Amino acid sequence: NTPFDPTDHPHRRYNPLTGQYVLVSPHRAKRPWSGQDEKPSEETLPAYDSGCFLCPGNTRVSGDVNPAYKGTFVFDNDFAALMTDSPNPEESDNPLFKIEGARGLSRVICFSPDHSKTLPELSLKAIRGVIETWNEQIESLGKDYLWIQAFENKGEAMGCSQPHPHGQIWANSFLPNEIARKDELLKAHFERYGKNLLVEYVESEQKERTRIVVETTHWLAVVPFWAAWPFETMLLPKAPAKRMNDLGEEQREDLALALKKLTSRYDNLFQCPFPYSMGWHYAPFFQDGSDTEHWQLHALFYPPLLRSATVRKFMVGYEMLAESQRDITPEQAAERLRALSDIHYKSLE
Amino acid sequence: NTPFDPTDHPHRRYNPLTGQYVLVSPHRAKRPWSGQDEKPSEETLPAYDSGCFLCPGNTRVSGDVNPAYKGTFVFDNDFAALMTDSPNPEESDNPLFKIEGARGLSRVICFSPDHSKTLPELSLKAIRGVIETWNEQIESLGKDYLWIQAFENKGEAMGCSQPHPHGQIWANSFLPNEIARKDELLKAHFERYGKNLLVEYVESEQKERTRIVVETTHWLAVVPFWAAWPFETMLLPKAPAKRMNDLGEEQREDLALALKKLTSRYDNLFQCPFPYSMGWHYAPFFQDGSDTEHWQLHALFYPPLLRSATVRKFMVGYEMLAESQRDITPEQAAERLRALSDIHYKSLE
Ligand SMILES: O=P(O)(O)O[C@H]1O[C@H](CO)[C@@H](O)[C@H](O)[C@H]1O
Ligand SMILES: O=P(O)(O)O[C@H]1O[C@H](CO)[C@@H](O)[C@H](O)[C@H]1O
Repeated sequence: NTPFDPTDHPHRRYNPLTGQYVLVSPHRAKRPWSGQDEKPSEETLPAYDSGCFLCPGNTRVSGDVNPAYKGTFVFDNDFAALMTDSPNPEESDNPLFKIEGARGLSRVICFSPDHSKTLPELSLKAIRGVIETWNEQIESLGKDYLWIQAFENKGEAMGCSQPHPHGQIWANSFLPNEIARKDELLKAHFERYGKNLLVEYVESEQKERTRIVVETTHWLAVVPFWAAWPFETMLLPKAPAKRMNDLGEEQREDLALALKKLTSRYDNLFQCPFPYSMGWHYAPFFQDGSDTEHWQLHALFYPPLLRSATVRKFMVGYEMLAESQRDITPEQAAERLRALSDIHYKSLE
Repeated sequence: NTPFDPTDHPHRRYNPLTGQYVLVSPHRAKRPWSGQDEKPSEETLPAYDSGCFLCPGNTRVSGDVNPAYKGTFVFDNDFAALMTDSPNPEESDNPLFKIEGARGLSRVICFSPDHSKTLPELSLKAIRGVIETWNEQIESLGKDYLWIQAFENKGEAMGCSQPHPHGQIWANSFLPNEIARKDELLKAHFERYGKNLLVEYVESEQKERTRIVVETTHWLAVVPFWAAWPFETMLLPKAPAKRMNDLGEEQREDLALALKKLTSRYDNLFQCPFPYSMGWHYAPFFQDGSDTEHWQLHALFYPPLLRSATVRKFMVGYEMLAESQRDITPEQAAERLRALSDIHYKSLE
């Protein structure tokens, strides 16, 4: 009998945060690729672009003029997916037509006045400023909303046609699917084992050491054991913290360093601005006193690239209809990211 | 107080097949789009391409030569995501590192020897042949496997760089996420209401008539009440049928017609070969005598386009981290598809 080899034999891994499996087919990475495989033209962007609606001093679609901001700059999205005061629909008596009201708001956070820079190219001080803005927004919106999703879509592959470094904040009167499910699973684990799943997970990864990508004094970035996207990572504090607001000054400064190192490794992988969607998950702002003991702050990075700066993983057909599938093991992905420098390639040019 | 208007006010709808909500933000479709918006160059393909590894008579990567097939042609995928005989991993004693073995196989189904034609351009007889092949493959593989996912990835937007009309079949020794979850939810509904959810759903949609896209004697295609993708549809038989094999000859012929009409409407929407991933869900091949009373055969179509032949909906940031979000209501999408001819635009040229 052939012994099981995770880099050769298809298998499934369980994601305890979503209750879903991922199919790992490592031998599949060996198939040839007939699609395009060359480097994208690396355009150099100016530090200021008069046509960009995020640059300081420019006028937006709404007619509002951006201030001459120096650090971060937050404004209400002119085309928000939610409204603060929309009415509720009437209930249907058909259980197959279940519908409910939803309220909220959307904001844009410019990370820097510099049009040409992405997160890893910002100074630690500037990244520290982004962290502060995330936390301020989350804490102040948390007074009125159950959930506040802070995220960044980076790169055209992730639907972002705006290169100016920026992220978004969507505040919700409801608990979105992913958070509701995670809350349930984290809670069930806490009740069953008496331990915080993610705090335990950090400890397990620190013991195994095969999936670590970045480790700083207070933070750990790993390719999760159950990662679906080829170079997906999760960034967690080593100490318990339910929300960003629970972090001390030292942990926040160290988070800027961890973010810079992680995103620099990403860019170094294919020597390109590495596209991704990233965002923060943490204890929701329950107003009914629900327990949040089972929560631990963490960031998730979902990058689409697989083989090169231009060849991505398509989560289509089988993945949409049946189950996520990946072509390299999480351990192989972590090893590749670990083998790179954590100094951004452009800063060496 | 403003009365609720589903085409103006954000709201959430519940998908009883996945247990997940979708956020509907119809006013958002009004925002301007700064990305590209022109027609893709419509290349005319030859009926035979000597460089295509799916065309009759050509040699594949494996060295095998395709026969001079006239209808459909099925072969084993040379780079399958699964193996028929891979070993099981050892169980981990850490509940956070849950892993299990997975076996299966992958096949490719060429829909037609004609390199230049897509599904809606095939004759009813040829589409009837594809249906027969799907059924034969599913029934014969169902003797050995719990789940057989038949699907088609169409178009470059769905990761398909091969224009020759074809689909895939992945057989699994396990029940993939989407099927396991659907089985649970359908069963719970059956136990609670004593009715088959999808049979009931067809009846409800036939009464409401606001989301119907195609109706033939035996089939109904609707934009589901809970659709996530802009022009997502579900195709169901009107009479109970757990699997394709339960369909009579008349229903099968009528399915060819329904498929041709639905995919023609899709192509007519933006006058382009409309990309999508589609596939079949039906009662799994439980070997332990588990009940399948709660199942009903149906096909799912997930097309990515939103505004034009080149502007797609990106399910990124908020969608990946929190909840699927759509920009037009399912009723608006159905209305647009219904307003089109069900005769393919190319056949009128
Ligand atoms: O098998 P193909 O067509 O090469 O690959 C395509 O479909 C598969 C099944 O949906 C996906 O896993 C791949 O990411 C996609 O590129
Ligand atoms: O708000 P943006 O950047 O225009 O839009 C982008 O991010 C949103 C939130 O993830 C998505 O709903 C859109 O599909 C995507 O294009």
